[in-house]
Parts: sequence; structure tokens; C-alpha cells
Amino acid sequence: MKGYEELFSYFETNLKKQAFDNEPNELYAPIQYTLALGGKRIRPVLTLMACELFGGQIEKALPQAIAIELFHNFTLIHDDIMDNAPLRRGKETVFKKWNNNIAILSGDTLFALAYQYVQQADTDILPVTLSVFNKTAIEVCEGQQFDLNFETKNDLSVVQYTEMIKLKTAVLFGASLKIGALIGGANREDAENLYNFGLNIGLGFQLKDDLLDTFGDEKIFGKKTGVDIISNKKTFLYLKALEIADGETRKKLIDFYNNNANQEEKFKEVKAIFTRLKVDQLALEKIDEYCNTGKESLSKINLDTDKKERLLAIAHRMIDREK
Amino acid sequence: MKGYEELFSYFETNLKKQAFDNEPNELYAPIQYTLALGGKRIRPVLTLMACELFGGQIEKALPQAIAIELFHNFTLIHDDIMDNAPLRRGKETVFKKWNNNIAILSGDTLFALAYQYVQQADTDILPVTLSVFNKTAIEVCEGQQFDLNFETKNDLSVVQYTEMIKLKTAVLFGASLKIGALIGGANREDAENLYNFGLNIGLGFQLKDDLLDTFGDEKIFGKKTGVDIISNKKTFLYLKALEIADGETRKKLIDFYNNNANQEEKFKEVKAIFTRLKVDQLALEKIDEYCNTGKESLSKINLDTDKKERLLAIAHRMIDREK
Repeated sequence: MKGYEELFSYFETNLKKQAFDNEPNELYAPIQYTLALGGKRIRPVLTLMACELFGGQIEKALPQAIAIELFHNFTLIHDDIMDNAPLRRGKETVFKKWNNNIAILSGDTLFALAYQYVQQADTDILPVTLSVFNKTAIEVCEGQQFDLNFETKNDLSVVQYTEMIKLKTAVLFGASLKIGALIGGANREDAENLYNFGLNIGLGFQLKDDLLDTFGDEKIFGKKTGVDIISNKKTFLYLKALEIADGETRKKLIDFYNNNANQEEKFKEVKAIFTRLKVDQLALEKIDEYCNTGKESLSKINLDTDKKERLLAIAHRMIDREK
Repeated sequence: MKGYEELFSYFETNLKKQAFDNEPNELYAPIQYTLALGGKRIRPVLTLMACELFGGQIEKALPQAIAIELFHNFTLIHDDIMDNAPLRRGKETVFKKWNNNIAILSGDTLFALAYQYVQQADTDILPVTLSVFNKTAIEVCEGQQFDLNFETKNDLSVVQYTEMIKLKTAVLFGASLKIGALIGGANREDAENLYNFGLNIGLGFQLKDDLLDTFGDEKIFGKKTGVDIISNKKTFLYLKALEIADGETRKKLIDFYNNNANQEEKFKEVKAIFTRLKVDQLALEKIDEYCNTGKESLSKINLDTDKKERLLAIAHRMIDREK
């Protein structure tokens, strides 16, 4: 049974073997560039692991693992245009390095290429694999649109935020596991429970992301903190703070998010409010809650305890991380 | 056996039944808007017709016909951003009516929705249907990128232009027919020959488009002519003219395409050069050539003559049109 590191390097090696070097170069160079930026590759590793846990050979799940990683990278290329983000993993984003049109079109191509890998599933599980993949793709688009809408929406609740991150982020973790499990030979019920496990871990993963962006230790985190606050991103922390703050603090927070204060000052002040209101603790409790709900789903699955431990290890890796 | 009009109205009726009214509205309203703009629906009609010709019920091909029309509309939404086109079928384009981000994301969603219809194919033909669809989607993206590249490329040949329109436009006609034929029960060889028929008719269709844009009768054409010339679009007419013009005329043409002359004057002058060089005649001859190559493919197919006549009728409808 392989752990994260082994599956990660198996995936990396095999992703590198995919050339993506067709013509026109303007279309494929950004695709090669994006895939070479690296990343944790959590989603494809989850697919490979789920397949193996249910008794399948990881080789059989490789095309779907690649499909999921290509899909994820397609969303990053398009999201970076929409968010006007100059950097991704410390390097220029595609639309910055090339231009908007190339970023739109190389993203579209990456999406279509993902389906060329989906297509490689065995005939008997192609319909369900394709169906999970399609449903997830649509949900991720919906999540991104909610995220864009929320930029200008002022009466946002934690519930609405949670629904957004579920669609934008969490469903893809669920789908990664479910598709791997189905390829490995899991029955529909086990695959569904694994999906729910992934969904909850995905929600925890995103809350941890919010938390690190404000409270992370830059030396370990490896990125600048405060980006969410400076860009007025309405995260769990902000929305929870608004929910529980008194009138004066609430007004202060809203003011900070609606006026262009000095960035450093703003980060410091808002972070202090978050700390005072203990929303970091509330976020950790919420993450625990998701973890527990995920574990409940896991407990229903017909798998040996040591295999479930493997999944829990990767879940904790996603959630207990400091970077 | 149903003709174009009957298949068109069958398709329109059934496309209207697809609601696409999910949340968030910012994502689905542009999709509903785009699909309601109408159009000739040639591609889905080809899919339905091909299915029926090989003995299938058109109902069985409906999901794939919808998939192809959704895919086509996805490409229009994204192309309009890239071409900065304000109007489509006389109405505002999605990125103009909403904004760039919504156009990118509703296009992405339409692409994913297309796959939800592909997915409805019977299990036995899903793999090949999906494979044709994926290959075509990637080629259409490649074609669009070549088209973008050609805007700033000066040493372009008719051969390169033909390869571009083959990818950007013609392959989707081939795929529409091939997928319909496979659903109808055609064998692989017949389906392939039908693909080649569609490909050649598609090439003819695009050349006819170029021709009408310059030489169309505005009263019948229903659109302003001269758009290609005014926007320096390197069409078959322009590239053929460059190929056969003498040095002085060649220089004149290149000057017109590189300087901002008065639009009306430029259209008039360039059109006069085209006429003098008889590139309109050469385009018509080329269209005839494609038609004949298409007919050769058709002749190899194991179908009754009256069924082939149906296909030829729709091919002539695409190519002999004046609007």
C-alpha cells in the first residue's frame, strides 16, 4: 500500500511523460508551462490511492488522475484571468506571461484534453466516471461564479460562503476519490461514502487555506500572509467575525473592507479583530467538525481499518498543514 | 425521411425544452440568452439526419445534436471575447452585455453541459462518440489559435489558411455527421466517409462565408458586407489575390491591410482588386472542388441514392446559400 510521497512521485513521473507538444505552440506552451509549475497534486494522489484501496492497480486510475489534474489546472488558468492574479506558485500567470486570449483558449484546450483522459476509462465504468466528472465540472464553474458574485455582495452569510467553497473546491476532492474508488472496484455505496468523506475534507482544506492566509507563519507558509484581507476577500473568518461582532466592531470591519486603508495597517487591525473575536479558534472547530463528519462517512465504508488509516493520514496532511 | 425544415423545427422545439435555469443566474442567463439567439442549427440537423439515414430514430441522436450545438455556442461566446466582437446575430455578445468574466465562465459551463449530453449516448457507442467529440473539440481550439496567430502573421499561404478553417470550422461538420451516423448504426467505414463528406462541405461552407462577406447582396445577406476586408481578415480571397497579383497590386493590397484607410474606400478598392483578379471565381471553383471531393466520399458509402440525395440537398443548402 503506497503513501502520499510514493503516489505523488508516481504521478509526477507519469504526468511528465505526457508531452502536450502539439501545434500551435501558442496553445500548448502555456499548457506545458502550467503543468510544470508543480503543486501538491493532492487530487490525483487521492484518485490513485482510492483505486488502490479498493484493490485496483494504480496504473488503471492514472488516466483519470491526469484528467482531474488537467481539469484543476484549466480552472486555475481561467480563475487567474478573472481574479486578475499576476502570480501563481511564484511565477507569472498565463494571461500575464502571454495574454488574455491565449489564457482563455489554452484553458479551453486543457479542459478538452482532460476529457481525452476521462475517455480512457474501461467501457464498463466510463458512463459513471464521465457522469461524476461532468457534474463536478459544472459545479466548480457554479462555485467560481458565486465567488465572483460575492465580491460585490454585502449581506453574505457563512452558510452561503460554505455552499460556495463546497462547489468551487470541495466537490473536486470528493470526485477525485469517488472516481478512483470506482476504478478500483468499489460498489456505488462505498464510492458515495468516500465522496462525502472527500467533500468534508475539502471543506476543511479550504477553511485551513483561509486560516493560513491570515494566521500562517510566513517562514513556513512560504507565501505572504494577509492577501485575503488586503483584497477584501470575504472568507469564513471575515463572515464569522461579522456574525459575532458587536455593532462598533462590525462597522469597523465593514469600513476596512470598503475603504482603501494602508495595506499593512489594515491587515494588522483586521487580524487583531479576528484574534479578539477568536474566529481563528472557531475556524479550527469548524474544521474539526468537517473532519468528524468525514470520518463518519469513512466509518460506513467496507474497508479494513489500516486502509482507512491511509485515507485519514492524507486528510490530516491536507488539514493540519502549515503551508 | 425528414428534410432540413422538419429536422430544424424538431431540434428547436427540443432545445427550448432544455431549461438551463439553474443557479447562479449570472452563469445561466448568458447561456439561455446565447441559445435563444437562434441560428441555422446546421450542425445538429446534420447529426439528426445522419442518424435517420442509417436507420436510427432521431430521438436517439437528440442528446448528441444538443451537445454539438452547445459546444458550438460555447466557442462563439469565447471567440467573441477574443475577437472583441460587439454583436452576434444582431444582438449584443455575452461579454458586451455582461462582462469578460461572465463570458469566460458561462462559456466554460456550456462546454461542460455539452458533455452532459454526450454522456447520454448508449453505453456501446459512448466511447467512440466521446472520442470523436474530444478530438473535434481540441481541433476547434487549435483552429481558433491559428486564426488568432494569423492576425499578426504576414507570410501566410492559402494552404495554411485552409488548414486553419479545416480545424476551426470544417471538422465540426464532419463530427456532427459521424456521430449521428454511429448512433444510427453505421459501420465505422461509412461513418468515416460521411465525416470526410462533412469536412469538405464544411470547407466549402467557410469559403462561401468569405465570399458572401465581400460579394454578398446586403439585401439578401441580411448583414453588412465588407467586414472581413475592413478588419484586415486574411481570408481565401485576400490570400489568393496576394498569390496571383503583380508586384504593384500586391503592394497595394498589403498597404490597404496595414494602414487605416477610410473604411468605405478601402472596401471598394480591395473588392475591385479581387474582382479584377477574379478571386471570387477562383473561390467558387475551389468550393466546387470541395463539393466534388465530398461527393466522392459520399459515393463510397453504403446508402440508397435517395438518402444520399438528402445529404447533397443539405450540402447545397450550406454552399449555394446567399445569406
